Amino acid sequence: MVSKTDPDDIAKSPTGDAYLLTPGPLTTSETVKQAMLHDYGSRDGSFVNLTRDVCAQLLDIADARESCDCVPIQGSGTFAVEAMLATMFSQKGKLLNLVNGAYGHRITEICEYLGRECVVLEFAEDVPVDVEKLEQALIDDESISHVSVIYCETSSGILNPLEKIAEAVNRYGRALLIDAMSSFGALPLSTRNIPFTALAASSNKCLQGVPGMGFCIVKKEALQSSAGNAHSLSLDLHKQAEAMSKNGQWRFTPPVHCLLALAQALTELDEEGGIVTREQRYRSNCQILRDGMRELGFRPLLPDELQAPIIVTFHIPENPGFEFQQFYDRLSARGYVIYPGKITNADTFRIGCIGDLGSNEMHGALLAIKATLKDMGIENL
Amino acid sequence: MVSKTDPDDIAKSPTGDAYLLTPGPLTTSETVKQAMLHDYGSRDGSFVNLTRDVCAQLLDIADARESCDCVPIQGSGTFAVEAMLATMFSQKGKLLNLVNGAYGHRITEICEYLGRECVVLEFAEDVPVDVEKLEQALIDDESISHVSVIYCETSSGILNPLEKIAEAVNRYGRALLIDAMSSFGALPLSTRNIPFTALAASSNKCLQGVPGMGFCIVKKEALQSSAGNAHSLSLDLHKQAEAMSKNGQWRFTPPVHCLLALAQALTELDEEGGIVTREQRYRSNCQILRDGMRELGFRPLLPDELQAPIIVTFHIPENPGFEFQQFYDRLSARGYVIYPGKITNADTFRIGCIGDLGSNEMHGALLAIKATLKDMGIENL
Repeated sequence: MVSKTDPDDIAKSPTGDAYLLTPGPLTTSETVKQAMLHDYGSRDGSFVNLTRDVCAQLLDIADARESCDCVPIQGSGTFAVEAMLATMFSQKGKLLNLVNGAYGHRITEICEYLGRECVVLEFAEDVPVDVEKLEQALIDDESISHVSVIYCETSSGILNPLEKIAEAVNRYGRALLIDAMSSFGALPLSTRNIPFTALAASSNKCLQGVPGMGFCIVKKEALQSSAGNAHSLSLDLHKQAEAMSKNGQWRFTPPVHCLLALAQALTELDEEGGIVTREQRYRSNCQILRDGMRELGFRPLLPDELQAPIIVTFHIPENPGFEFQQFYDRLSARGYVIYPGKITNADTFRIGCIGDLGSNEMHGALLAIKATLKDMGIENL
Repeated sequence: MVSKTDPDDIAKSPTGDAYLLTPGPLTTSETVKQAMLHDYGSRDGSFVNLTRDVCAQLLDIADARESCDCVPIQGSGTFAVEAMLATMFSQKGKLLNLVNGAYGHRITEICEYLGRECVVLEFAEDVPVDVEKLEQALIDDESISHVSVIYCETSSGILNPLEKIAEAVNRYGRALLIDAMSSFGALPLSTRNIPFTALAASSNKCLQGVPGMGFCIVKKEALQSSAGNAHSLSLDLHKQAEAMSKNGQWRFTPPVHCLLALAQALTELDEEGGIVTREQRYRSNCQILRDGMRELGFRPLLPDELQAPIIVTFHIPENPGFEFQQFYDRLSARGYVIYPGKITNADTFRIGCIGDLGSNEMHGALLAIKATLKDMGIENL
């Protein structure tokens, strides 16, 4: 990571690219990218071993090696979420989908494609899931078989109380499906205290690999009884797991280079000290960002206690001189790529805290933002 | 490409890896892999432009820029084939699936998942599609709306007579869906002489990129009228195209590094002289391989005139000393990874001719095969 103190410098990562302060694709280490400089035969023993090792490491992150299987799946995180829903939750089931943002709504949309019954318990975009209301919904409707939740809702950056949600869902004897896309690898998610049936996450995001594959961590008995549920050959987790258990191979051509990058990224996660240390770095990044942005006059959407250390949503300033696209473009030119808003109720933009970034890059970004405001002729927000 | 004349040498590509004589993932150039040493924001203008340029180049390969759209899709080639079938062929349609190998059967399997009507016209694995029988099937069943075919059936390496098939399907007023996975970028496929409704292919294979994404090239009017057909959010080509036409962005996180590699691979295809020159190189690779293997006593499954210059299937020799796994492992140790058989009727194995390989590598492979047979104590097959 490169230090940057002069606000008029243009920041560049070691590979000459802008830093990505986004929820992913994000800035990965040079060594993660260099791991992709090889070609492997996907049915060769060396690649079979690599897949097996990566899956074992992913299971270990959730303390799930005993009770779960890890099933990788080609495509983006949404492909993994769709595969999880399609395979683990059948036509006979009924899903209670906990929603407080765009990724929650996406689960409802997937269920519409699947033609599966889905009821929504919705909260405002800046309000975490209310566990009492969840419990009441489970009491009121005994036909609900599954509950889905987004651990960290990337559309706002809000953290949902996963441990309490999982405890309640388990107490009422339902199956929990977790979208852990923006949290897996940085926020605690262990089978020891969080009972779940399946979770979906991706190579990208907090694991700091490159995008191109997702994976599901699934309770063994649930996976075994899921034959015939999936709507799609490509997204059939049961078939994927069945084929892998036979010969260790992916059914269809895997994203070989993405897996090579993920293997290196998992080594680097380990070297960093595991997910506890990674969470600390992200928390520190997030604090530097929130403090610095507040000092510049920006207002975060969420209070500190609801903020996951993944991505921070800020209100678009009311200053008439502030035009977001201009701000974005000027900041990009200074070497920091941020993210537009995703929630509709408030006019916002987002800045990510994850990836191969530390305090130098966060301070660098704040200096660049300060300089960008000056370029735009804005003295005070 | 590295020359290799001493059969006792262990061959290594410039990156130190074994050469992949497989149908993909295959050996890519160093520069294609080096193109992945960057991180891009997937919603940033530079990546939007990259996606647009790659799609335009893919359309140009099929002379399709006027009449078609190119819709990229995350995942392996099978994901693209499933997306094509799901989006372009609705519940109201009826598919005539032309089958002479495993990839043809895979289309039938996808239709079973989709719950869509599919009738199969099957030929033996070493027999190309018979156009007269196709015509008769179209005459006999007016309810057939679509026809699907595998251009080069990778399970045997057989070439199907695509131009004649397309002409017949068009003459009888049906829509043609082409699995061009192992052919696009090397075998002729132009809208000028091959009328089709959609084709599916991938970044990998003859384009010599890395695996991780597919794409469909689809007639504009067919794409426009395909809303609501798809069974899957992730694999909905219509939605993907609609979103891209609005802001140039992929709906869900794209495999950024895979697209960077594909952009470089397309530049290198152009530098090589385009698909005509690439086909010539593959034909030369194929001829060297077939001649050399015959000289060693191996028998190709297909006669020369049915052989696509992509992958060659050989019968497992009857010599009792020849055990395939041992042959494979010893040859891998010498730096050449080949491929097991995929067709069930004959006991076979396969060797690919595609990727960043030329006559040096094919001759090197033959020397290594000769030495491997000697290691196995086989004097004469």
